[in-house]
Amino acid sequence: MGSHEQPAAVSRRAFAGGSAAFAMSAAVGATVGHRGAAAEGDPLPSWNDGSAKQAILDFVAAVTTEGGSGFVAPSDRIAVFDNDGTLWTEQPVYSQALFAVGEVKRLAPEHPEWVGQEPWDAVISGDPARMSKLSEADIANVLASATTGMTTDQFAENVANWFAVAQHPVQKRPYGQTTYQPQLELLDYLEANGFATWIVSGGGVDFMRVFAEDVYGIPPERVIGSSTAVDWEMTDAGPVLIKQPKLGSYNDKTGKPINIHLAIGKRPIFAFGNSDGDKEMLEYTAAGDGARLMLLVHHDDAAREAAYDRGSHIGGLDAAWDEAVEKGWTVVSMKDDWATIFPG
Amino acid sequence: MGSHEQPAAVSRRAFAGGSAAFAMSAAVGATVGHRGAAAEGDPLPSWNDGSAKQAILDFVAAVTTEGGSGFVAPSDRIAVFDNDGTLWTEQPVYSQALFAVGEVKRLAPEHPEWVGQEPWDAVISGDPARMSKLSEADIANVLASATTGMTTDQFAENVANWFAVAQHPVQKRPYGQTTYQPQLELLDYLEANGFATWIVSGGGVDFMRVFAEDVYGIPPERVIGSSTAVDWEMTDAGPVLIKQPKLGSYNDKTGKPINIHLAIGKRPIFAFGNSDGDKEMLEYTAAGDGARLMLLVHHDDAAREAAYDRGSHIGGLDAAWDEAVEKGWTVVSMKDDWATIFPG
Repeated sequence: MGSHEQPAAVSRRAFAGGSAAFAMSAAVGATVGHRGAAAEGDPLPSWNDGSAKQAILDFVAAVTTEGGSGFVAPSDRIAVFDNDGTLWTEQPVYSQALFAVGEVKRLAPEHPEWVGQEPWDAVISGDPARMSKLSEADIANVLASATTGMTTDQFAENVANWFAVAQHPVQKRPYGQTTYQPQLELLDYLEANGFATWIVSGGGVDFMRVFAEDVYGIPPERVIGSSTAVDWEMTDAGPVLIKQPKLGSYNDKTGKPINIHLAIGKRPIFAFGNSDGDKEMLEYTAAGDGARLMLLVHHDDAAREAAYDRGSHIGGLDAAWDEAVEKGWTVVSMKDDWATIFPG
Repeated sequence: MGSHEQPAAVSRRAFAGGSAAFAMSAAVGATVGHRGAAAEGDPLPSWNDGSAKQAILDFVAAVTTEGGSGFVAPSDRIAVFDNDGTLWTEQPVYSQALFAVGEVKRLAPEHPEWVGQEPWDAVISGDPARMSKLSEADIANVLASATTGMTTDQFAENVANWFAVAQHPVQKRPYGQTTYQPQLELLDYLEANGFATWIVSGGGVDFMRVFAEDVYGIPPERVIGSSTAVDWEMTDAGPVLIKQPKLGSYNDKTGKPINIHLAIGKRPIFAFGNSDGDKEMLEYTAAGDGARLMLLVHHDDAAREAAYDRGSHIGGLDAAWDEAVEKGWTVVSMKDDWATIFPG
């Protein structure tokens, strides 16, 4: 059920943030982000001292202390992270949506049939008033026109080309530097302690894999995401996989633990999210035996990034927040717990 | 298309081998198989000298020689193996089918509604004449009754219990020792040379993961297989995943490269199969740039295991064999290339 209930999910996610975000700027020569080096003696220098940082340090100490009651064998040290809003910014709108809109504009010259035709023309125009009149099906149709119907290799090349030059419209920096510095340190810290870190995101798996290794140090085979269906096609030049304008699996809510089971086959011991879409992933993680750590980023920092939680169309944090309070999951305040937000 | 075209696949696979195989014997105290240790100086002691062994040695030398024209970075050294007929025996019938039939018999006392009712009663009876009259849908229904509708944890426990004691009806040894010794050595050899070895099998992923690490040294997260759909359910004791009597993905033929793309996100450089179900996986591997090695086990050893190829209902090797000859893929003769078949 969970994996098929939202066929128009990409479009809903893409456009829920409001049409002001549709403008996409690009600057040639931007470089991708880099991971932070830990200060001597403190593996998490961008985390302020406090209960959240202490919970992480205590958990890692517990699961890595041989003979201790919380010890977990390295092969079972599975840590799962949501991506949008947990590892990088998701405001004012998901970066993948900005990529898709950019692709519609970039490819428009090759598609004279789009120009002057709704719904393509509205998206190409970038006019918020016109775009707000589009239905979800229209939007899905437009985005699919520019991001499917091609080989998986071609799609990856398109993402890479975009990622190399595009700048985030609000943060005014390359997308690869809209990652959160405290989380880059946390990924390093966990890996250094024998964890395998995984991305488990509602974002597209074919999209994230293009940059996840460079940006997060997470290789393609440890990225789980939403997928489009792909078809096998034998061409004169050999076999190719063609991305179809059809959802394969929507990796959100119950889809997250279901796909964790499918892809990893083990229950994580550590899960980090930021929205109600992560609730079931944290519940699934919490339900195992032994030491566990469940965390949520609370975006409460309007000055440095954004402040949003209950009722937000992007990254709404409501039922998961209540459950975190009730069950003692760790709620990380971006304002109080993070000394820096973005890589320097 | 590929992943949904065979909803009754498990039953077809399970019973295509003929009803004589339905009898399942069990012996308490059997141990699981172990991996072979390479003899000093020869990493593949159970492989006879010949063109197949040489092709493997040459390939590994090429991709691991820094500065050489065939060098491949360790992170891209992806090796994929079919399971049934490639890593362990699939004759006279797939082991998973014998497990499923065994489960029907084991669980029958808890299901008085099965006894005396067709199609259950025919399967429980083990009478080949009665079973041969069952339709594929009937068979699928019976097997699903005993292997779905339970939590993924319960299913794994059932497989583990079976695997610990069951003996293969023909080889008269535990299933964990119906693996091929030359392949255990090959897995070790590839891992020692920086490869990540993966199973990519038409068998069930939830089934194989129970024993793949013990038997092959391949952890759950590197096992790709067919899957049943699972549903998320919140119980008083916490969330569980329930296996549904419904195919999720059938990992055979075009399903193999499609699921390799979904799970790994990289193209393998090495692929080993034994039947037409592996053809597309080998084609996909072959189509990449740089050094590649594609291999097929040819079961031509009636004395030590079984002799079958074209026209076999289990592990039929026909179009893939023709393509191997045409394209220079390596065909491994079980009779000539393997000094030993099973672990000693």
